[in-house]
Amino acid sequence: MTRLSFNHATAKFWDQGEVIEACAREGIGIGLWREPVAEYGIDRTIAKLKETGVPVTTLCRGGFFTTGGRESIEDNRRAIDEARALGTKVLVLVSGGLPEGSRDIDGARAKVADALAELAPYAGDAGVTLAIEPLHPMFASDRCVVSTLDQALDLAAPFPAAQVGAAVDTYHIWWDPNLYAAIARAGTEGRIATFQVADWTTPLPAGVLTGRGQLGTGCVEMRRIKAAVDAAGYDGPIEVELFNDELWARPGREVFAETVAAYEEHVG
Amino acid sequence: MTRLSFNHATAKFWDQGEVIEACAREGIGIGLWREPVAEYGIDRTIAKLKETGVPVTTLCRGGFFTTGGRESIEDNRRAIDEARALGTKVLVLVSGGLPEGSRDIDGARAKVADALAELAPYAGDAGVTLAIEPLHPMFASDRCVVSTLDQALDLAAPFPAAQVGAAVDTYHIWWDPNLYAAIARAGTEGRIATFQVADWTTPLPAGVLTGRGQLGTGCVEMRRIKAAVDAAGYDGPIEVELFNDELWARPGREVFAETVAAYEEHVG
Repeated sequence: MTRLSFNHATAKFWDQGEVIEACAREGIGIGLWREPVAEYGIDRTIAKLKETGVPVTTLCRGGFFTTGGRESIEDNRRAIDEARALGTKVLVLVSGGLPEGSRDIDGARAKVADALAELAPYAGDAGVTLAIEPLHPMFASDRCVVSTLDQALDLAAPFPAAQVGAAVDTYHIWWDPNLYAAIARAGTEGRIATFQVADWTTPLPAGVLTGRGQLGTGCVEMRRIKAAVDAAGYDGPIEVELFNDELWARPGREVFAETVAAYEEHVG
Repeated sequence: MTRLSFNHATAKFWDQGEVIEACAREGIGIGLWREPVAEYGIDRTIAKLKETGVPVTTLCRGGFFTTGGRESIEDNRRAIDEARALGTKVLVLVSGGLPEGSRDIDGARAKVADALAELAPYAGDAGVTLAIEPLHPMFASDRCVVSTLDQALDLAAPFPAAQVGAAVDTYHIWWDPNLYAAIARAGTEGRIATFQVADWTTPLPAGVLTGRGQLGTGCVEMRRIKAAVDAAGYDGPIEVELFNDELWARPGREVFAETVAAYEEHVG
């Protein structure tokens, strides 16, 4: 049985219903996003998942605690409800960056810890694990003040592993001198909630958000990192999540087929 | 006495002789680059420095060990000779990224360690400290496989501090969850060879090389980091080094004056 899951963001502009059908034909899972779920309709999404039998490996995404105030807590409760309704055990969290004009990165990180304390029990009751995703340090100011896997694990530490874990995404952490120790630690602590893969390519595009490379096109040691994640005891789905303008400009079914093939060649 | 030093790269296209004169008028030091030194003429540069009394706080830069082979060792010996001739005690090293087509980041890091072992005694004999500069992880694949201050300190550890130290540059390490512990460690180990400042602003430009912000325009906690570097026992020059297309497009003397004022307001 393949562990591959296709994250909808990889073919962002492809109709969600068609992506689910493609995943069903391929016999793989899917990573969903809240906005397309809402657009397609959550009940309709649930019906489509039931009809096709496609498992939802993660829901993306909650978080943005640092800039959202009280409203972000309420919104994250709704995200947890949606994750449960969609039948996934994992809600991916991107913490948020610095508030406009702020330089207080420690303060922002403290807000993330506070938000987790509010949300963790609620997530646990829903059977959903909050997966703190460290984002590459190039996003530290504007998207995510959590920059390393160790930091995510430190934030998760006060909570049961069923409530709070970490997202291991090759794109964001491949460069970390402490990577393999951190992956082993994540395994020991039972915190690997999801494993996502994307390759690192340069030059980065302006804004750096949409430069994630197709598997095999960059410098990430995919098999080595996968072996480390396996050795850490994680045997769950492996999601391909690529934010890439060039992929997004192409037909979804073509990108889907290419991604499945690239996964088999470079990861699976 | 001001600790400010103006790195020539901040006004990259301004004639080196004019930059030295501006530094003399302001009573500050200068950070030089090998290429403009060669273009201006090293003997002529030395004469100009003598005439004006401007101290050279660093020479930028050696390194690129990962992609340069034997030739890079020879080139770095020449860089050490140039540093001594210019009267600076610090040669800044950017390690280099991954060789074309390579995914072996551990191998590249090992090459950096090997190159340091060859060069450190030669640098020590010349009275020059090799300052390993961790670059922001967004440069890990194409410019520098050394991404954190701790990693630079680990690489420096086998050598006397007079031979190998680290460059502390706010732009590259401000995001590090372990920043303040690493700065304290660098001080304890006597390894702070130079302190450089630049601000972090977004959105990053394509290629991400030329987006360093003028002091005060971004989110780096300048005074806090400076206080930590001071507390770690470093009392040497503070260099402003900005790679910024917008600054480079403006007249050098205007950028110089703006930079001196920004330093006084946000750092000094």
